[in-house]
Amino acid sequence: MKRTKEEITYEPIGFFRSPFSDIKGMPIQPVGGMDYEGSIEILAEFRDGLKDLEGFSHLIVLSHLHRIKGYDLLVKPFLDNDYHGIFATRSPKRPNPVGFSIMEIRQVTATGVDLRGIDVIDGTPVIDIKPYVADFDIWQASRFGWFEGKSGQATRHKSDDRFR
Amino acid sequence: MKRTKEEITYEPIGFFRSPFSDIKGMPIQPVGGMDYEGSIEILAEFRDGLKDLEGFSHLIVLSHLHRIKGYDLLVKPFLDNDYHGIFATRSPKRPNPVGFSIMEIRQVTATGVDLRGIDVIDGTPVIDIKPYVADFDIWQASRFGWFEGKSGQATRHKSDDRFR
Repeated sequence: MKRTKEEITYEPIGFFRSPFSDIKGMPIQPVGGMDYEGSIEILAEFRDGLKDLEGFSHLIVLSHLHRIKGYDLLVKPFLDNDYHGIFATRSPKRPNPVGFSIMEIRQVTATGVDLRGIDVIDGTPVIDIKPYVADFDIWQASRFGWFEGKSGQATRHKSDDRFR
Repeated sequence: MKRTKEEITYEPIGFFRSPFSDIKGMPIQPVGGMDYEGSIEILAEFRDGLKDLEGFSHLIVLSHLHRIKGYDLLVKPFLDNDYHGIFATRSPKRPNPVGFSIMEIRQVTATGVDLRGIDVIDGTPVIDIKPYVADFDIWQASRFGWFEGKSGQATRHKSDDRFR
Protein backbone atom coordinates (compact mmCIF):
# COMPACT_ATOMS: atom_id res chain seq x y z
CA MET A 1 0.00 0.00 0.00
CA LYS A 2 1.30 3.39 -0.94
CA ARG A 3 1.22 6.01 1.76
CA THR A 4 1.76 9.70 1.60
CA LYS A 5 3.81 11.04 4.47
CA GLU A 6 2.99 14.65 3.77
CA GLU A 7 1.21 16.61 6.45
CA ILE A 8 -2.32 17.65 5.53
CA THR A 9 -2.72 21.42 5.62
CA TYR A 10 -5.90 23.37 4.87
CA GLU A 11 -6.89 27.00 4.90
CA PRO A 12 -10.35 28.25 5.83
CA ILE A 13 -12.60 29.12 2.88
CA GLY A 14 -14.74 31.15 5.27
CA PHE A 15 -16.07 31.46 8.79
CA PHE A 16 -19.37 30.82 10.55
CA ARG A 17 -21.54 33.53 11.96
CA SER A 18 -23.59 31.74 14.58
CA PRO A 19 -25.76 32.78 17.51
CA PHE A 20 -23.66 30.53 19.78
CA SER A 21 -20.53 31.93 21.35
CA ASP A 22 -20.03 28.99 23.70
CA ILE A 23 -20.21 25.22 23.37
CA LYS A 24 -22.39 24.88 26.47
CA GLY A 25 -26.09 25.05 25.60
CA MET A 26 -25.50 24.69 21.85
CA PRO A 27 -27.50 22.14 19.81
CA ILE A 28 -25.53 18.91 19.31
CA GLN A 29 -26.74 18.42 15.73
CA PRO A 30 -28.43 20.58 13.06
CA VAL A 31 -31.72 18.76 13.78
CA GLY A 32 -31.57 20.37 17.21
CA GLY A 33 -30.70 23.76 15.76
CA MET A 34 -33.62 24.30 13.39
CA ASP A 35 -34.78 27.27 15.42
CA TYR A 36 -31.45 28.98 14.84
CA GLU A 37 -30.19 30.81 11.79
CA GLY A 38 -26.65 31.68 10.92
CA SER A 39 -24.42 32.06 7.92
CA ILE A 40 -21.08 31.22 6.42
CA GLU A 41 -19.12 34.21 5.22
CA ILE A 42 -16.98 32.98 2.34
CA LEU A 43 -13.65 34.76 1.91
CA ALA A 44 -13.67 37.11 -1.07
CA GLU A 45 -11.14 35.10 -3.04
CA PHE A 46 -13.42 32.03 -3.05
CA ARG A 47 -16.82 33.61 -3.70
CA ASP A 48 -16.91 32.81 -7.41
CA GLY A 49 -17.18 29.18 -6.30
CA LEU A 50 -20.72 29.85 -5.02
CA LYS A 51 -22.16 30.08 -8.57
CA ASP A 52 -25.35 27.97 -8.92
CA LEU A 53 -25.41 26.91 -5.25
CA GLU A 54 -28.74 28.73 -4.87
CA GLY A 55 -30.43 25.86 -6.71
CA PHE A 56 -29.95 23.51 -3.76
CA SER A 57 -32.03 23.21 -0.59
CA HIS A 58 -29.38 21.67 1.70
CA LEU A 59 -25.65 22.06 2.21
CA ILE A 60 -22.94 19.72 3.49
CA VAL A 61 -20.62 21.74 5.72
CA LEU A 62 -17.18 20.58 6.84
CA SER A 63 -15.83 22.79 9.59
CA HIS A 64 -12.69 22.90 11.68
CA LEU A 65 -13.73 22.66 15.35
CA HIS A 66 -11.05 25.08 16.44
CA ARG A 67 -11.92 25.09 20.14
CA ILE A 68 -11.32 21.35 20.50
CA LYS A 69 -7.97 20.49 22.07
CA GLY A 70 -6.75 16.92 22.08
CA TYR A 71 -8.90 13.82 21.74
CA ASP A 72 -9.98 10.64 23.48
CA LEU A 73 -10.32 7.30 21.70
CA LEU A 74 -13.13 6.26 24.06
CA VAL A 75 -15.84 8.81 24.83
CA LYS A 76 -19.15 8.98 26.63
CA PRO A 77 -21.28 10.85 24.08
CA PHE A 78 -24.19 13.20 24.80
CA LEU A 79 -26.88 10.66 24.08
CA ASP A 80 -25.57 7.66 26.00
CA ASN A 81 -24.02 6.68 29.33
CA ASP A 82 -21.57 4.11 27.99
CA TYR A 83 -18.15 4.58 26.48
CA HIS A 84 -17.83 4.08 22.73
CA GLY A 85 -14.95 4.33 20.31
CA ILE A 86 -14.64 7.90 19.03
CA PHE A 87 -15.16 6.68 15.43
CA ALA A 88 -18.51 5.13 16.47
CA THR A 89 -19.68 8.53 17.76
CA ARG A 90 -20.24 12.04 16.41
CA SER A 91 -18.47 13.62 19.36
CA PRO A 92 -16.22 16.55 18.44
CA LYS A 93 -13.10 15.61 20.42
CA ARG A 94 -11.65 13.54 17.57
CA PRO A 95 -8.08 12.95 16.35
CA ASN A 96 -8.85 15.42 13.54
CA PRO A 97 -11.63 17.71 14.80
CA VAL A 98 -13.64 18.01 11.59
CA GLY A 99 -17.29 18.88 12.06
CA PHE A 100 -19.80 17.46 9.59
CA SER A 101 -23.21 19.13 9.36
CA ILE A 102 -26.03 19.17 6.86
CA MET A 103 -27.81 22.50 6.98
CA GLU A 104 -30.77 24.07 5.20
CA ILE A 105 -29.88 26.81 2.70
CA ARG A 106 -31.99 29.92 3.27
CA GLN A 107 -30.29 31.95 0.58
CA VAL A 108 -26.99 32.44 -1.17
CA THR A 109 -25.82 36.03 -0.81
CA ALA A 110 -23.05 38.10 -2.37
CA THR A 111 -20.75 37.14 0.50
CA GLY A 112 -21.76 33.64 1.49
CA VAL A 113 -24.65 31.40 2.48
CA ASP A 114 -27.44 31.99 5.01
CA LEU A 115 -28.37 28.78 6.78
CA ARG A 116 -30.87 27.23 9.16
CA GLY A 117 -30.01 24.40 11.58
CA ILE A 118 -26.92 25.65 13.36
CA ASP A 119 -24.76 23.47 15.62
CA VAL A 120 -21.42 25.28 15.58
CA ILE A 121 -20.04 28.24 17.48
CA ASP A 122 -19.46 31.70 16.07
CA GLY A 123 -16.18 32.11 14.22
CA THR A 124 -15.71 28.42 13.40
CA PRO A 125 -13.52 28.09 10.30
CA VAL A 126 -15.14 26.35 7.34
CA ILE A 127 -13.02 23.91 5.33
CA ASP A 128 -15.43 22.97 2.57
CA ILE A 129 -19.07 23.16 1.52
CA LYS A 130 -20.74 20.80 -0.93
CA PRO A 131 -24.30 20.49 -2.23
CA TYR A 132 -26.41 17.78 -0.58
CA VAL A 133 -27.56 15.38 -3.31
CA ALA A 134 -30.16 12.71 -2.46
CA ASP A 135 -28.81 10.17 -4.95
CA PHE A 136 -25.37 10.35 -3.31
CA ASP A 137 -26.13 11.09 0.31
CA ILE A 138 -29.31 9.24 1.26
CA TRP A 139 -28.63 5.57 1.96
CA GLN A 140 -30.98 2.84 3.07
CA ALA A 141 -28.95 2.27 6.18
CA SER A 142 -30.25 -0.54 8.38
CA ARG A 143 -28.15 -0.51 11.54
CA PHE A 144 -27.33 2.42 13.82
CA GLY A 145 -25.48 0.73 16.68
CA TRP A 146 -25.80 2.42 20.06
CA PHE A 147 -27.73 5.32 18.46
CA GLU A 148 -30.80 3.03 18.01
CA GLY A 149 -33.69 4.63 19.85
CA LYS A 150 -31.46 7.51 20.95
CA SER A 151 -30.53 9.63 17.93
CA GLY A 152 -34.05 11.12 17.81
CA GLN A 153 -33.32 12.81 21.14
CA ALA A 154 -30.81 15.08 19.40
CA THR A 155 -33.68 17.37 18.41
CA ARG A 156 -33.85 18.62 21.99
CA HIS A 157 -30.54 17.68 23.59
CA LYS A 158 -28.10 20.54 24.16
CA SER A 159 -24.36 20.41 24.57
CA ASP A 160 -22.73 20.65 27.95
CA ASP A 161 -19.06 21.40 28.47
CA ARG A 162 -17.70 17.84 28.45
CA PHE A 163 -15.87 18.42 25.16
CA ARG A 164 -14.60 21.89 25.94
CA MET B 1 -16.86 38.04 14.04
CA LYS B 2 -13.98 36.24 15.65
CA ARG B 3 -11.58 34.53 13.32
CA THR B 4 -8.82 32.11 13.98
CA LYS B 5 -5.74 32.75 11.93
CA GLU B 6 -4.15 29.45 12.74
CA GLU B 7 -3.39 27.08 9.92
CA ILE B 8 -5.43 23.90 9.95
CA THR B 9 -3.22 20.83 10.14
CA TYR B 10 -4.36 17.23 10.22
CA GLU B 11 -2.66 13.86 10.29
CA PRO B 12 -4.04 10.74 8.61
CA ILE B 13 -5.84 8.32 10.93
CA GLY B 14 -5.38 5.65 8.28
CA PHE B 15 -5.17 4.89 4.58
CA PHE B 16 -7.44 3.39 1.94
CA ARG B 17 -6.82 0.08 0.30
CA SER B 18 -8.73 0.35 -2.95
CA PRO B 19 -8.80 -1.57 -6.24
CA PHE B 20 -8.19 1.73 -8.07
CA SER B 21 -4.64 2.90 -8.60
CA ASP B 22 -5.59 5.67 -11.03
CA ILE B 23 -8.28 8.34 -11.14
CA LYS B 24 -9.22 7.47 -14.73
CA GLY B 25 -11.95 4.82 -14.86
CA MET B 26 -12.78 5.09 -11.15
CA PRO B 27 -16.40 5.46 -9.99
CA ILE B 28 -17.26 9.11 -9.34
CA GLN B 29 -19.39 8.33 -6.27
CA PRO B 30 -19.88 5.33 -3.94
CA VAL B 31 -23.21 4.60 -5.70
CA GLY B 32 -21.11 3.84 -8.78
CA GLY B 33 -18.66 1.75 -6.82
CA MET B 34 -21.01 -0.81 -5.26
CA ASP B 35 -19.32 -3.60 -7.22
CA TYR B 36 -16.02 -2.74 -5.59
CA GLU B 37 -14.75 -3.59 -2.15
CA GLY B 38 -11.90 -2.00 -0.27
CA SER B 39 -10.88 -1.12 3.24
CA ILE B 40 -9.47 1.54 5.48
CA GLU B 41 -6.47 0.47 7.47
CA ILE B 42 -6.53 2.49 10.66
CA LEU B 43 -3.14 3.31 12.14
CA ALA B 44 -2.39 1.23 15.24
CA GLU B 45 -2.45 4.22 17.59
CA PHE B 46 -6.08 5.01 16.68
CA ARG B 47 -7.61 1.51 16.56
CA ASP B 48 -9.20 1.66 20.01
CA GLY B 49 -11.48 4.32 18.50
CA LEU B 50 -13.19 1.62 16.40
CA LYS B 51 -15.01 0.14 19.42
CA ASP B 52 -18.74 -0.43 18.69
CA LEU B 53 -18.50 0.70 15.06
CA GLU B 54 -19.55 -2.81 13.98
CA GLY B 55 -23.11 -1.95 15.01
CA PHE B 56 -23.53 0.41 12.07
CA SER B 57 -24.33 -0.41 8.44
CA HIS B 58 -22.87 2.72 6.80
CA LEU B 59 -19.85 4.94 7.35
CA ILE B 60 -19.14 8.59 6.61
CA VAL B 61 -15.58 8.86 5.30
CA LEU B 62 -13.62 12.09 5.03
CA SER B 63 -10.48 11.61 2.99
CA HIS B 64 -7.64 13.81 1.81
CA LEU B 65 -7.55 13.68 -1.99
CA HIS B 66 -3.78 13.75 -2.07
CA ARG B 67 -3.39 13.54 -5.84
CA ILE B 68 -5.32 16.76 -6.42
CA LYS B 69 -3.11 19.77 -7.10
CA GLY B 70 -4.60 23.24 -7.16
CA TYR B 71 -8.23 24.12 -7.74
CA ASP B 72 -10.63 25.95 -10.01
CA LEU B 73 -13.54 28.04 -8.75
CA LEU B 74 -15.56 27.21 -11.86
CA VAL B 75 -15.59 23.62 -13.07
CA LYS B 76 -17.33 21.51 -15.67
CA PRO B 77 -18.28 18.44 -13.60
CA PHE B 78 -18.60 14.85 -14.82
CA LEU B 79 -22.37 14.89 -15.12
CA ASP B 80 -22.89 18.20 -16.93
CA ASN B 81 -21.56 20.30 -19.79
CA ASP B 82 -21.88 23.69 -18.11
CA TYR B 83 -19.55 25.43 -15.69
CA HIS B 84 -20.67 25.62 -12.09
CA GLY B 85 -19.12 27.07 -8.96
CA ILE B 86 -16.90 24.48 -7.29
CA PHE B 87 -19.03 24.68 -4.10
CA ALA B 88 -22.13 23.74 -6.14
CA THR B 89 -20.38 20.57 -7.35
CA ARG B 90 -18.83 17.46 -5.84
CA SER B 91 -15.75 17.74 -8.06
CA PRO B 92 -12.49 16.93 -6.25
CA LYS B 93 -10.37 19.88 -7.42
CA ARG B 94 -11.47 22.08 -4.51
CA PRO B 95 -9.67 24.75 -2.43
CA ASN B 96 -9.34 22.10 0.31
CA PRO B 97 -9.47 18.70 -1.41
CA VAL B 98 -11.54 16.81 1.16
CA GLY B 99 -13.41 13.82 -0.18
CA PHE B 100 -16.76 12.98 1.37
CA SER B 101 -18.14 9.48 0.84
CA ILE B 102 -20.77 7.33 2.50
CA MET B 103 -19.80 3.68 2.24
CA GLU B 104 -21.34 0.37 3.32
CA ILE B 105 -19.58 -1.33 6.24
CA ARG B 106 -18.86 -5.00 5.45
CA GLN B 107 -17.04 -5.67 8.69
CA VAL B 108 -14.88 -4.04 11.30
CA THR B 109 -11.59 -5.91 11.64
CA ALA B 110 -8.71 -5.81 14.08
CA THR B 111 -6.94 -3.29 11.85
CA GLY B 112 -9.69 -1.22 10.29
CA VAL B 113 -12.94 -1.35 8.32
CA ASP B 114 -13.83 -3.37 5.22
CA LEU B 115 -16.13 -1.39 2.93
CA ARG B 116 -18.28 -1.64 -0.17
CA GLY B 117 -18.88 1.29 -2.55
CA ILE B 118 -15.41 2.56 -3.31
CA ASP B 119 -14.71 5.85 -5.12
CA VAL B 120 -11.17 6.69 -4.00
CA ILE B 121 -7.75 5.58 -5.14
CA ASP B 122 -5.45 3.24 -3.28
CA GLY B 123 -3.35 4.90 -0.59
CA THR B 124 -5.67 7.87 -0.07
CA PRO B 125 -5.17 9.25 3.47
CA VAL B 126 -8.26 9.18 5.68
CA ILE B 127 -8.91 12.18 7.94
CA ASP B 128 -11.96 11.00 9.84
CA ILE B 129 -14.68 8.37 9.89
CA LYS B 130 -18.07 8.78 11.54
CA PRO B 131 -21.13 6.55 11.81
CA TYR B 132 -23.96 7.35 9.38
CA VAL B 133 -27.08 8.11 11.43
CA ALA B 134 -30.43 8.47 9.65
CA ASP B 135 -31.81 11.01 12.13
CA PHE B 136 -28.84 13.30 11.50
CA ASP B 137 -27.92 12.62 7.90
CA ILE B 138 -31.13 12.01 5.95
CA TRP B 139 -32.88 15.26 5.09
CA GLN B 140 -36.03 15.86 3.11
CA ALA B 141 -34.13 17.95 0.61
CA SER B 142 -36.30 19.43 -2.13
CA ARG B 143 -33.96 21.11 -4.58
CA PHE B 144 -30.86 19.70 -6.25
CA GLY B 145 -29.88 22.46 -8.67
CA TRP B 146 -28.10 21.34 -11.81
CA PHE B 147 -27.98 17.75 -10.49
CA GLU B 148 -31.76 17.39 -11.12
CA GLY B 149 -32.26 14.47 -13.50
CA LYS B 150 -28.50 13.92 -13.66
CA SER B 151 -27.25 12.64 -10.31
CA GLY B 152 -28.77 9.19 -10.98
CA GLN B 153 -26.27 8.76 -13.80
CA ALA B 154 -23.48 8.54 -11.23
CA THR B 155 -24.25 4.84 -10.81
CA ARG B 156 -22.62 4.14 -14.17
CA HIS B 157 -20.46 7.19 -14.90
CA LYS B 158 -16.71 6.70 -14.49
CA SER B 159 -14.05 9.32 -13.88
CA ASP B 160 -11.82 10.57 -16.68
CA ASP B 161 -8.61 12.47 -16.12
CA ARG B 162 -10.00 16.01 -16.11
CA PHE B 163 -9.19 16.45 -12.40
CA ARG B 164 -5.81 14.76 -12.47
